[in-house]
Amino acid sequence: MGRVTTRRPVLRMSNGRIVDRPDTLAVEEPLQIRLGAAPLTTTMRTPGDDFDLVAGWLVCEGAVSAAADIVAMRLCSDELNTVEVTLAVGVEPPRPRAFATTSACGVCGSDSVAAVESVLRWPVTDDQVTVASTVIADLPDMLRSEQRAFDSTGGLHAAGLFTSAGEPVCVREDVGRHNAVDKVVGAALRKDSLPLTGHVLQVSGRASFELVQKAAMAGIPVLSAISAPSSLAVDLAQVCGVTLLGFVRDAGMNVYAHPRRVVTG
Amino acid sequence: MGRVTTRRPVLRMSNGRIVDRPDTLAVEEPLQIRLGAAPLTTTMRTPGDDFDLVAGWLVCEGAVSAAADIVAMRLCSDELNTVEVTLAVGVEPPRPRAFATTSACGVCGSDSVAAVESVLRWPVTDDQVTVASTVIADLPDMLRSEQRAFDSTGGLHAAGLFTSAGEPVCVREDVGRHNAVDKVVGAALRKDSLPLTGHVLQVSGRASFELVQKAAMAGIPVLSAISAPSSLAVDLAQVCGVTLLGFVRDAGMNVYAHPRRVVTG
Repeated sequence: MGRVTTRRPVLRMSNGRIVDRPDTLAVEEPLQIRLGAAPLTTTMRTPGDDFDLVAGWLVCEGAVSAAADIVAMRLCSDELNTVEVTLAVGVEPPRPRAFATTSACGVCGSDSVAAVESVLRWPVTDDQVTVASTVIADLPDMLRSEQRAFDSTGGLHAAGLFTSAGEPVCVREDVGRHNAVDKVVGAALRKDSLPLTGHVLQVSGRASFELVQKAAMAGIPVLSAISAPSSLAVDLAQVCGVTLLGFVRDAGMNVYAHPRRVVTG
Repeated sequence: MGRVTTRRPVLRMSNGRIVDRPDTLAVEEPLQIRLGAAPLTTTMRTPGDDFDLVAGWLVCEGAVSAAADIVAMRLCSDELNTVEVTLAVGVEPPRPRAFATTSACGVCGSDSVAAVESVLRWPVTDDQVTVASTVIADLPDMLRSEQRAFDSTGGLHAAGLFTSAGEPVCVREDVGRHNAVDKVVGAALRKDSLPLTGHVLQVSGRASFELVQKAAMAGIPVLSAISAPSSLAVDLAQVCGVTLLGFVRDAGMNVYAHPRRVVTG
């Protein structure tokens, strides 16, 4: 496993004083995902939990949904920045993203929403779980307390999977918030526990379209973000049946989609 | 031009009270970039300044460096989410990112740094500009005061180009911080003012490898971030000659690379 943090010299300038000291930084390194020998995609990520990252990426791209869909993963090269995946017979690899959107009827937000809806494997809308608002209000602090590397760097996003009672299940960190979510989803896939019925995903930043897509692809019924959601995140959550919360801070929260799962108390 | 913000109903829960009210959100919509009729990439972005975004993306991918390299850009389809680009004769389009890293010698951070170094068009290292630390300390507040849509949504990143004396030149907002930088760089390309010698780029979030790459591709000698840089952002800044500042807040700052350009006072 690669290093999550590293040290670099830094000049600290403050109140007219200059101090030369080492600083701890979050590591960012490329990871190439290969299908056999063929490169599929390259992402910048924080090393560690790479098999979780690859498995989760494959779930969120719609390629796999059960542990058996992935026959093998192998870290290769001296730098440990390449993962070679072998998919089970009959499992289709994801198409490269660069060409993913070529809809004949134009390019718009509702097309993007419909594209995700068409590949969903789980009826997230049917999930009858409820979560107390007091449980949700505590999740950001719980996520933060489970972050091993944030305090030393200030540069890592986190995603945490919790039960509806607020028990932590899995927390992952990464320089990219989408990677942190992929790692959580991939860890669940590798335990063959998809769909993640009855769970809550707490993320450290904002909620974008992409994060709601990942939650929906993993069958997670509740996504809670510390900061703002985008318009398309709300639209996708509405269509996919995901309860979306934003600005979860200072004992308050905004519910943007499917509020029926949030109960006061 | 598309809308930058939109409104959605939200349930606000706070201190046991539930209020049903509209909330203002940052708009996120897909933008497809086409070369003639062929799709090149699709990115989620906040509508507005789309030609700047496309031009800047082409600069940062190493395809163009002068206004004349782009013969035409056309917003098409009813939804205004597709830009068709015509490049000048002899200008090579960028390769799709999904397949960009297929180096035979493995995949690692230094390869990524070397790959950017090999396509740089400007000797950023030669830029002799100096910036006062007091000027840099003021940039985050200046950036924030120029943000038109952040205050209403809390969901938009910003990038601002400033002179070395701290005069604002161009500020752009987007749900994606990389898009905000592309928009600033593209606006400069369209005025044919690349390389951006003697300028400072201030960004609202963290400094990743990708943001340093964009600064270097535009010839910007100083990149200042409000939050943490990653390890690879520092390594790339070092190699490309970009002065990199992080944690620029509360009158203090950390200088991670090429501190010679930052003078006290």
